[in-house]
Amino acid sequence: MKDEEEQTNDRLNESSSANPTVRSEFDLIAQIRRRTSARASAASSLQPSSLVRGIGDDAAVIKQLSGRDTVITSDLLVEDIDFHRDSTRPNLLGHKALAISLSDIAAMGARPLWALLSIGIPQEIWTSDFIDEFYEGFLALARQYDVTLVGGDVSRTVDKIVIDSIVMGESASGGEIFRSGARPGDEIFVTGNLGGSAAGLRLLEQGARIEKAITDENEWHLIQELLLRHLCPEPRVGWGLVLGQENLASAMIDISDGLSSDLNHLCRESEVGALVDSTQIPVEPLVSELCGRRALDPLILALNGGEDFELLFTVSPENAARLPTRVDGVSISKIGQINKAAEGVLIAEGSRVWNLEPRGWEHFKG
Amino acid sequence: MKDEEEQTNDRLNESSSANPTVRSEFDLIAQIRRRTSARASAASSLQPSSLVRGIGDDAAVIKQLSGRDTVITSDLLVEDIDFHRDSTRPNLLGHKALAISLSDIAAMGARPLWALLSIGIPQEIWTSDFIDEFYEGFLALARQYDVTLVGGDVSRTVDKIVIDSIVMGESASGGEIFRSGARPGDEIFVTGNLGGSAAGLRLLEQGARIEKAITDENEWHLIQELLLRHLCPEPRVGWGLVLGQENLASAMIDISDGLSSDLNHLCRESEVGALVDSTQIPVEPLVSELCGRRALDPLILALNGGEDFELLFTVSPENAARLPTRVDGVSISKIGQINKAAEGVLIAEGSRVWNLEPRGWEHFKG
Repeated sequence: MKDEEEQTNDRLNESSSANPTVRSEFDLIAQIRRRTSARASAASSLQPSSLVRGIGDDAAVIKQLSGRDTVITSDLLVEDIDFHRDSTRPNLLGHKALAISLSDIAAMGARPLWALLSIGIPQEIWTSDFIDEFYEGFLALARQYDVTLVGGDVSRTVDKIVIDSIVMGESASGGEIFRSGARPGDEIFVTGNLGGSAAGLRLLEQGARIEKAITDENEWHLIQELLLRHLCPEPRVGWGLVLGQENLASAMIDISDGLSSDLNHLCRESEVGALVDSTQIPVEPLVSELCGRRALDPLILALNGGEDFELLFTVSPENAARLPTRVDGVSISKIGQINKAAEGVLIAEGSRVWNLEPRGWEHFKG
Repeated sequence: MKDEEEQTNDRLNESSSANPTVRSEFDLIAQIRRRTSARASAASSLQPSSLVRGIGDDAAVIKQLSGRDTVITSDLLVEDIDFHRDSTRPNLLGHKALAISLSDIAAMGARPLWALLSIGIPQEIWTSDFIDEFYEGFLALARQYDVTLVGGDVSRTVDKIVIDSIVMGESASGGEIFRSGARPGDEIFVTGNLGGSAAGLRLLEQGARIEKAITDENEWHLIQELLLRHLCPEPRVGWGLVLGQENLASAMIDISDGLSSDLNHLCRESEVGALVDSTQIPVEPLVSELCGRRALDPLILALNGGEDFELLFTVSPENAARLPTRVDGVSISKIGQINKAAEGVLIAEGSRVWNLEPRGWEHFKG
């Protein structure tokens, strides 16, 4: 297992040094196809369903197997809404595009297997290194989880980049974990730590950038790591698989909008209430450190920040003892319990109890 | 079977008269979910694979069946590249977004079953009728072919609309028709007529608009119908199914870039050449009529125009006799034959023979 600094460097150095080449979109498709075809055939003997035809036809073809379910999600990333070209890097953007969809598959308790990528880019990006570096970040993460790129689309746009990431996965039939399965008495858990992505976003908004030198050298590592939490999130694929295969969780959702919003989504779908203990929320230590220096409240970032892509799940008391303590080096925290719907979705801070209002991300306000 | 004028009116009148409502994206998702859930359960008893979970969770879930293959495609539509807001209508755009992906599934010889839709829109569109009308056009076409919307994403954009349409279908394992299966001696066929979409696009560029009054009333119906060929194409789902299920075609592609480009794609994948007889190309009669009035060459539009979404397929001489003459009222034309690769991709005009250069649509020129 690599330490965090090494991983950070890996993520930073995944950009290509190849010169941009003049090519048509058909050249690009042929090039991506060469980079994925070896992978596809190597994977097909190991994986539960196998690839019949990948990139290069009107559609991709995958063999089905009885007793299995296909799980599929799509996620749109829009320039200047979901990311800014000048505050990320193409390889990090490629990583993140795939990561957010892998996170959705993990939140179903399923195994990711196949990806499609629809990407729209303006002409000046087409003739730059962007595309090569973007696919490098995307494909490096795909390799990490044995996911094969099997299709997609390439289009021109007027001036902004747009990416739609589609991931298909599989689980044993009926083995998916829905948002709707939580029952009163279940315990609420979350993987990893929260608030790092929101802190990274605020640092970006204040002008911090990947690998940019700053006056206070003591803060450099702290800032770099928090920026990466936002720009290069790690999906909890391993936890999703374990919880799904072992039938451990009664309900699950990934934290994309923010804990407060996503817990409310889960409770609404399950028709239950919840009581969260604020002292048990695993605030990212780097966020606490940053907030200490800036006199900010780290709990607000952890509750409403969004894009941490940790898994929020519920477990019946009988199953709680069977939970592993760590998967892929990531631990979990018990943050509360599920109650009846009538009790509402609440958070306790010491002796005070509040309604936990959904204050996470919304694209459109009503 | 409705006549063409009635169909035209249906397509024009599919817009909603409901007032735009103030809502969040979660309201929209809940609303779409209500409109699709009845359909999903009604369909599941009839269709080969069944929906376990549609809109409203982290991902959609579909039950697999042995002996079947999943076929999946995604198509990106970008404002001011692939369409212009002022020259189409939201319901026609919704129809077209689904139609182009249905056409890809048809070109594999498969049956479309499930759709996902990722859509990015600016704030001012969010608070207009656009979204309701767009989904109405999309869902009307989905109903026509028993396709169920099972997921997707909604995002905000700065100023342009972007749509990624994902369709999954099914075929008997090994029953797909690839681009790569054409063999020397096979006959080349195309469904329907060609050039209508390109003529419609040129009319749009010259300022013609749906339902706009014009000075020369004799041309009104001609222009309206050609505009719809571009703005509201009909995917050849029935032909795709028949050719796939009856194992009739050796290779197939849909005409999205243009006959000249798509035949070259098919020949490259199959490692064959082709000879097309220009006199057999089914030029859309309305295009001939328009070109006659404008002193233009209709054959150029039929060869290089693109977006007709007809199916181009090859059939062995033994199978040619088994081809139906019409499916869903659409006939086919034999336009040439497959030769060895060394002979090249050619078109004969009387006694002259030329290389058929791919002159269709490319998003990026090399």
